[in-house]
Amino acid sequence: MRSLYCGEVNESHIGQEVTLCGWVNKRRDLGAVIFLDVRDREGIVQVVFDPDLPDVLEKANTLRNEFCVQITGKVRPRPEGQVNKDMATGGIEVLGLSLNILNKSAPLPLDFNQENSEEQRLRYRYLDLRRPEMSERLKFRAKVTAAVRKSLEGQGFLDIETPILTAATPEGARDYLVPSRTHKGNFFALPQSPQLFKQLLMMSGMERYYQIVKCFRDEDLRADRQPEFTQIDIETSFMTADQVMAVTEKMIRELFIELLDVDLGEFPRMPYAEAMRRFGSDKPDLRNPLEIVDVADILKDVEFKVFSGPANDDNGRVAVICVPNGAASFSRKNIDDLTKFVGIYGAKGMPWLKVNDIDAGLEGLQSPILKFLSEEAVAALLERTNAKTGDIIFFGADTYTTVSEALGALRLKLGEDLGITSDEWKPLWVVDFPMFEEVDGHMHALHHPFTAPSNATPEELEANPIGALSDAYDMVLNGCELGGGSVRIHDKPMQSAVFRILGISDEEAQEKFGFLLDALQYGAPPHAGLAFGLDRLVMLMTGASSIRDVMAFPKTTTAACPLTNAPGQANEAQLVELGIAKLPKEK
Amino acid sequence: MRSLYCGEVNESHIGQEVTLCGWVNKRRDLGAVIFLDVRDREGIVQVVFDPDLPDVLEKANTLRNEFCVQITGKVRPRPEGQVNKDMATGGIEVLGLSLNILNKSAPLPLDFNQENSEEQRLRYRYLDLRRPEMSERLKFRAKVTAAVRKSLEGQGFLDIETPILTAATPEGARDYLVPSRTHKGNFFALPQSPQLFKQLLMMSGMERYYQIVKCFRDEDLRADRQPEFTQIDIETSFMTADQVMAVTEKMIRELFIELLDVDLGEFPRMPYAEAMRRFGSDKPDLRNPLEIVDVADILKDVEFKVFSGPANDDNGRVAVICVPNGAASFSRKNIDDLTKFVGIYGAKGMPWLKVNDIDAGLEGLQSPILKFLSEEAVAALLERTNAKTGDIIFFGADTYTTVSEALGALRLKLGEDLGITSDEWKPLWVVDFPMFEEVDGHMHALHHPFTAPSNATPEELEANPIGALSDAYDMVLNGCELGGGSVRIHDKPMQSAVFRILGISDEEAQEKFGFLLDALQYGAPPHAGLAFGLDRLVMLMTGASSIRDVMAFPKTTTAACPLTNAPGQANEAQLVELGIAKLPKEK
Repeated sequence: MRSLYCGEVNESHIGQEVTLCGWVNKRRDLGAVIFLDVRDREGIVQVVFDPDLPDVLEKANTLRNEFCVQITGKVRPRPEGQVNKDMATGGIEVLGLSLNILNKSAPLPLDFNQENSEEQRLRYRYLDLRRPEMSERLKFRAKVTAAVRKSLEGQGFLDIETPILTAATPEGARDYLVPSRTHKGNFFALPQSPQLFKQLLMMSGMERYYQIVKCFRDEDLRADRQPEFTQIDIETSFMTADQVMAVTEKMIRELFIELLDVDLGEFPRMPYAEAMRRFGSDKPDLRNPLEIVDVADILKDVEFKVFSGPANDDNGRVAVICVPNGAASFSRKNIDDLTKFVGIYGAKGMPWLKVNDIDAGLEGLQSPILKFLSEEAVAALLERTNAKTGDIIFFGADTYTTVSEALGALRLKLGEDLGITSDEWKPLWVVDFPMFEEVDGHMHALHHPFTAPSNATPEELEANPIGALSDAYDMVLNGCELGGGSVRIHDKPMQSAVFRILGISDEEAQEKFGFLLDALQYGAPPHAGLAFGLDRLVMLMTGASSIRDVMAFPKTTTAACPLTNAPGQANEAQLVELGIAKLPKEK
Repeated sequence: MRSLYCGEVNESHIGQEVTLCGWVNKRRDLGAVIFLDVRDREGIVQVVFDPDLPDVLEKANTLRNEFCVQITGKVRPRPEGQVNKDMATGGIEVLGLSLNILNKSAPLPLDFNQENSEEQRLRYRYLDLRRPEMSERLKFRAKVTAAVRKSLEGQGFLDIETPILTAATPEGARDYLVPSRTHKGNFFALPQSPQLFKQLLMMSGMERYYQIVKCFRDEDLRADRQPEFTQIDIETSFMTADQVMAVTEKMIRELFIELLDVDLGEFPRMPYAEAMRRFGSDKPDLRNPLEIVDVADILKDVEFKVFSGPANDDNGRVAVICVPNGAASFSRKNIDDLTKFVGIYGAKGMPWLKVNDIDAGLEGLQSPILKFLSEEAVAALLERTNAKTGDIIFFGADTYTTVSEALGALRLKLGEDLGITSDEWKPLWVVDFPMFEEVDGHMHALHHPFTAPSNATPEELEANPIGALSDAYDMVLNGCELGGGSVRIHDKPMQSAVFRILGISDEEAQEKFGFLLDALQYGAPPHAGLAFGLDRLVMLMTGASSIRDVMAFPKTTTAACPLTNAPGQANEAQLVELGIAKLPKEK
């Protein structure tokens, strides 16, 4: 029905007759002449109807925005002065010779020239996606998946599908449940990830598995969460952590070179402990030049208990962020606001110190807490932070976790507010995670219960779980976790030990994960893997501000679809057939 | 951890040291020497341990089948007389220099040397998949998806994901439902296909969409059905039915050439009516030389009511299958069995006629119904069927549907039983389907309610729905429907007309499909598409006898997974959170 796309017409077609299909993007009626911008997936071209063909002109006169049209015309250079260098097709125009109106359009419920509400955009998603910004994102996403597949298949990875209707998975978030009709009273769960299936595939000898796969979590949604999201899921046998990191780093580097012409270079590696210490985060944004500096040793002898308390506590932390040239930027009001901000993370206050003149001794400093500190401590502090005239120093003193989280968040906020976060790409690997963390007296797996310790026997691990490091690795880009993975446990005694540490009895473990424990007995190979969040990767690469903007049909923050009205009503007979009933509404 | 795959070691590596990882496939202990067959994803290689390295030999002595091992050794030619030409690695062996037992294996619960029950195979699927036959199928499947993606992406198709948590879809099978926690009392449905989303993507201007996507049907399972299955889903704008068929035929032809070195040639096209007439099926198996021949005109004046009744009825059919050289193959007992067989399809009997001597007139014929037929009719019958000495003719006389189905099934059975179905590949397109069929006084869409009529206005369609043909097309290969599709309705009046014909009131249509009807108003482009069943395609291409054998983790015929025990129990708190309760068990 067309000879080429609108966006493809160029000077090489001058003199040729072309047939185009697309939508009226804009229409200008200059009385005797009508100009159309006609849009299709690949771009926009200008079409002119003139009085030489009065029938066609008359028909063109009935066109309105978003009519779907088929136009045959002759390509000609634009007249002198009308050339538009900002447009791919700006050097030419098409003189319309015939016009076929494929479909009319009522006036759109969305105005493309203004911001529309999220609700409206999702309700009329099929129109929202006509905006070139949105269609470009979906096209880009398709390019990402194609490049990922090419890279992985080139390295011998097999695309293998795993079930969507499955058993409850152990990731810890809430599962979506699906009532079974043939086994009434029982439920499938939608997978939070194909973790156990991909491990089983390694035990099957498939050796290199990948899948670009939907995963599901029934969580209360935040800006960057969706009930269903897409994972680039990878698992390998007979590879070390280093090799898995090499393979996947290569994939991401190739992706950035191919699609963005950006060479990310070799990714640095940073132990978890260092990331927490310097950046207060396990996904540090290295574009931000600010760092957290520990000063407990300097302040442990001051009389000020706010500092000396945590400084002398094994679980405490006293640290600062020094903002170069920041003194003038922060009024009392600003500082009060920041204090409230760190309060969100549990910080009970935020002492500060302005360096008005580094050469003027204590006189040159300004701070509500100066009187509590010794001159030596202050001098050591200024030296440690390498503070200069005009800088401001913010303090955190509390438990290790609270200070790290509060100063980590403060660092990001300051980087953003002060505009000092660069727009480079800053990838890194975070490694050497603890196996477990203790929360409210319970042990939790920092990654998941199938992650192997770096270097411990089951007995050693059970004797000192909190000190054990795991063979896990996260890929971080610009402060976002792009992906995470680990070497997996591949023998039954270790897997049983980890379950026991997590408070899962042998009996419960057998009931829930018996098939995994069984499978580990039949020559399970050493294996390791990783999963990337595709939505977030595409969001970062396209500069979109939400993963919703890189999905064709996302859900709202209450997990609904205003377009199809899902979730919807089910009739009573269906529910009876499934062996379930609705509970009466809560008052 | 390895230098190459086991299956890759060959004569070019002779003299080199290699490191291999894999599983002990077989172990032969010849006293002083131990031979191992070591298996990995790419094949099997022979490893020899000899007494020159007693420590290694001793360790090798502890190996059992399915132990996971890492072996370093030196490649050498096999001794004269031990070369195995049937094995890719049969010219060489690896002299084991070191052995690392990566994991031991308990004796397997599956015996690879015999048939295991389906239940056992699924329960220990991770072991079942170690069988080269199974792993080859999964590898082949991955090649199919890669080739499909390459072909479609090369033609400008964009891989776009559509939701899994969505509204009930109109395909007609039972939906899987997912209770919503955030909208209690409401339910998502898992998609039976992304039909409406792909049409909406066309209205978004994406123009060429494809997706390899899971679809779900909660049906009682037959041999070739699974609760979740995978579709190669395709939709295009601005293409005619011919163009869609050309694009997808090209894809399938390329696939067969690339993966099976088979050129399917150009696919013939056959109208639905012809397929039913000649083969009694809308998915004729053209490998079978038998055809159904209509003889109503010849038999309409005979006195035998069994024939003359249907022959004079507009909804009746009288037809035969003539089996060349079949007379001797069918005893009374055989014929009785065949009569029972066609009875399944509603045939109330199956008259027959053996041609013992074509030159002997009525004397040369044998048939219980010969006495009811005139000499002229018999002569015309023999001429019409081109019967020869030694042939047998089977009769069907009933309604058009019953005769077509019964003789269609008989044709397939005879082709199979007599071994006359060839093993070529016989693809075709079936086209010109009726828009609707009437079942029990209700109109049903033969494809789905979004299929466009070939050539009718909404008014014409409503005036004569039963006579209307649709712009639909099915791709059939060897009697299996590989895929089906159609040109879609792209304007609201036509869509509303079809809903009314199907007995869906305007009000109900607006409630269920309002978003589609709305979307058709905003310049929806002409569009068309097709969906292939990936599982069935791979099954045919690999010669597997069930789609279960080309899926990594299929379900049983009661839709359960013996491996993970899905569907499983849900706890009360989860259900309350979802606003549902289990109904008490039926007595």
